[in-house]
Amino acid sequence: MKEIYLDNNATTKVDEKVLEAMLPFFKENYGNPSSMYSLAQAPHKAIEDARKVIADFVGAKSSKEIYFTSCASESANMAIKGLLEENKNKKHLITTKVEHPCVLNLHKELEKKGYKVTYIDVDSNGDLDINSLKNAIKEDTLLVSVMTANNETGVIYPVENIAKMVKEINPQTKFFTDAVQAAGKIKIDVSKAPIDFLIISGHKFHAPKGIGALYVKSGTIISPLIIGGHQERGKRAGTENVPYIVGMAKAAQIAEENLKLEETKVKYLRDKLEQGILKNVFNAKLNSTSANRVVNTTNIGFQYVEGELILLHLSDLGIFASSGSACTSGSLDASHVLKAMGVPFTSLHGSIRFSLSKYNTEEEIDYVIEKMPEVIEKLTRISPFQDEIEKLRASHKA
Amino acid sequence: MKEIYLDNNATTKVDEKVLEAMLPFFKENYGNPSSMYSLAQAPHKAIEDARKVIADFVGAKSSKEIYFTSCASESANMAIKGLLEENKNKKHLITTKVEHPCVLNLHKELEKKGYKVTYIDVDSNGDLDINSLKNAIKEDTLLVSVMTANNETGVIYPVENIAKMVKEINPQTKFFTDAVQAAGKIKIDVSKAPIDFLIISGHKFHAPKGIGALYVKSGTIISPLIIGGHQERGKRAGTENVPYIVGMAKAAQIAEENLKLEETKVKYLRDKLEQGILKNVFNAKLNSTSANRVVNTTNIGFQYVEGELILLHLSDLGIFASSGSACTSGSLDASHVLKAMGVPFTSLHGSIRFSLSKYNTEEEIDYVIEKMPEVIEKLTRISPFQDEIEKLRASHKA
Repeated sequence: MKEIYLDNNATTKVDEKVLEAMLPFFKENYGNPSSMYSLAQAPHKAIEDARKVIADFVGAKSSKEIYFTSCASESANMAIKGLLEENKNKKHLITTKVEHPCVLNLHKELEKKGYKVTYIDVDSNGDLDINSLKNAIKEDTLLVSVMTANNETGVIYPVENIAKMVKEINPQTKFFTDAVQAAGKIKIDVSKAPIDFLIISGHKFHAPKGIGALYVKSGTIISPLIIGGHQERGKRAGTENVPYIVGMAKAAQIAEENLKLEETKVKYLRDKLEQGILKNVFNAKLNSTSANRVVNTTNIGFQYVEGELILLHLSDLGIFASSGSACTSGSLDASHVLKAMGVPFTSLHGSIRFSLSKYNTEEEIDYVIEKMPEVIEKLTRISPFQDEIEKLRASHKA
Repeated sequence: MKEIYLDNNATTKVDEKVLEAMLPFFKENYGNPSSMYSLAQAPHKAIEDARKVIADFVGAKSSKEIYFTSCASESANMAIKGLLEENKNKKHLITTKVEHPCVLNLHKELEKKGYKVTYIDVDSNGDLDINSLKNAIKEDTLLVSVMTANNETGVIYPVENIAKMVKEINPQTKFFTDAVQAAGKIKIDVSKAPIDFLIISGHKFHAPKGIGALYVKSGTIISPLIIGGHQERGKRAGTENVPYIVGMAKAAQIAEENLKLEETKVKYLRDKLEQGILKNVFNAKLNSTSANRVVNTTNIGFQYVEGELILLHLSDLGIFASSGSACTSGSLDASHVLKAMGVPFTSLHGSIRFSLSKYNTEEEIDYVIEKMPEVIEKLTRISPFQDEIEKLRASHKA
């Protein structure tokens, strides 16, 4: 049975070197890093070394700006709720319509608590309406949250420019970016712009699921989300997950070294897959043609076909992709990202995200390009839109 | 170099069988459990199987009552803040003076937000003043939080009786128990009493650091602490830490099977250590003589000596114990638990917690009993309390 994994924006396989780096911390180096004795020195040092690695990975000036958390969702909640708690006088927030649920759903909850939230639109390519963002910044705007790269389309947002723009209009407004889908795919660098908060998640770049980090710019004060012991300088209680912290740092180092590989091999394979499908499949349509996308992601709408059925057929062939994000897949709603882009209903429910990694091979991509037309042909036969399908088929041939 | 680990209430060594159970979920079973395809079925099933195991472990009726979290501190914050969020009209909380920081410090924060908190005293043995707890329950008491076993002294609290008492006085009051130090040492069973919330932490019973669980009695409503995706039935966003969830379930199964071993071997070694030290060391005094203690823990005050110095000397001999808890060890303050018990200053700062596990051997315990007098002799020589020391020495000989 084949296993062609093209859902790396949902989660990634743990790198063997990452697992290897973690193992001693499950075995001999099991001490509690908060303890005083020699047995605790190795785990304690490992955490602080990892903090330096992650600080470098995101461009932080000091490792004191890095907090380890259990996931990006925790990081987002910790940053945003923690900032709000410290600034109760300001009630206006800005974010985008295409954020990950950990930012978007949090803002929806905050609206119920009396916050006013402005959700910025995107165009049909998934690009942000920067002008309306600019106009939305007010005196009492506490926070602007814009993701670095979108998880469903891969579209990269100009967060450095946005952060600078925000501060020019209101120097008191804080800027948050979810860099979960950017980390390991493009260089992240908080030193290039006035970014106050940035979050990453280990399992999107070949560390395990269950570890994240939060960058908080020095001088920005937040209340802790998890109150208890003194860990993480009093900002995040709970005995530190030493193996995963070590693992995420190792994964970050590898990702940093591999950035060129992403830009060459992974991009080559993604482009080949994208072009191959668009060429071979008559009803395929790229949902975002933005050139400015992370190199591993493509999101393709197959018009007049049901996405879940495509996924099931692909899964039977050992090809794993997704519709929408895994974090929203519990619901049958269409992707909020594609809806915000105005993707028409004819391809909205038939959109598939393919997200590659360094582990994919050209042989795998060729196989997907070969099989995709067969899968779609089978499914169009049961579509109720036969006339429309025939028209599309004719125009594709032409 | 010897490695005699007697700090198992701070953290434990991961059981080899636990690591073995986790490994496939770092390797082949890496899919995101929220995904639809076959690659996600094994991790998805593993989580639901683990949920059943943890439900059984704590006596829950349904696995739907179990939520996986990243640690006990998160579990406590999720339960308590989540309950408060849903019941904003009630402002009175009750807890004890000897809770773990994740409960105690959270209550201190809540006081700043307008909550009224009653902190229940303990006697010199560490036992709770049940009568004052009873009298403290009022019409607007939202929550009573009492730990199942204390992390520093091992004293077990009659939480089943307390829960029943609470509900008799005010059926609307919820009952929370931190069972972190009880899990794997004594049988936990929420079905025996009206317990609404219970928390456990994997790394206290030979699973890794970074995984916890929260039991929420069916019908008790809480708001999520971490908002985002639909994971954990919408109550805890974030991609599930599949390997650790599997690991904690395996550790729970092993712990359940080993309960007899705890009551026999571990208790035997703890008692031998305790009696050996009390007999051989002239200034040693048991901080709690309560018979009702978890079987692995003893807390001994060495009068007129500095605890941190004892720990350093023990560490040099390859013996690892602690003063206070690792979660408070960042501060130089004396233990809040021992202070609440009224331990006099003469032994307050010289108190050492020894906490054993199934991995300890009789040889190790004999070695500690042998070495302890030498360590204490060396340190009493530099104590400024020479007259008092001589008196103690004389009375010990007598």
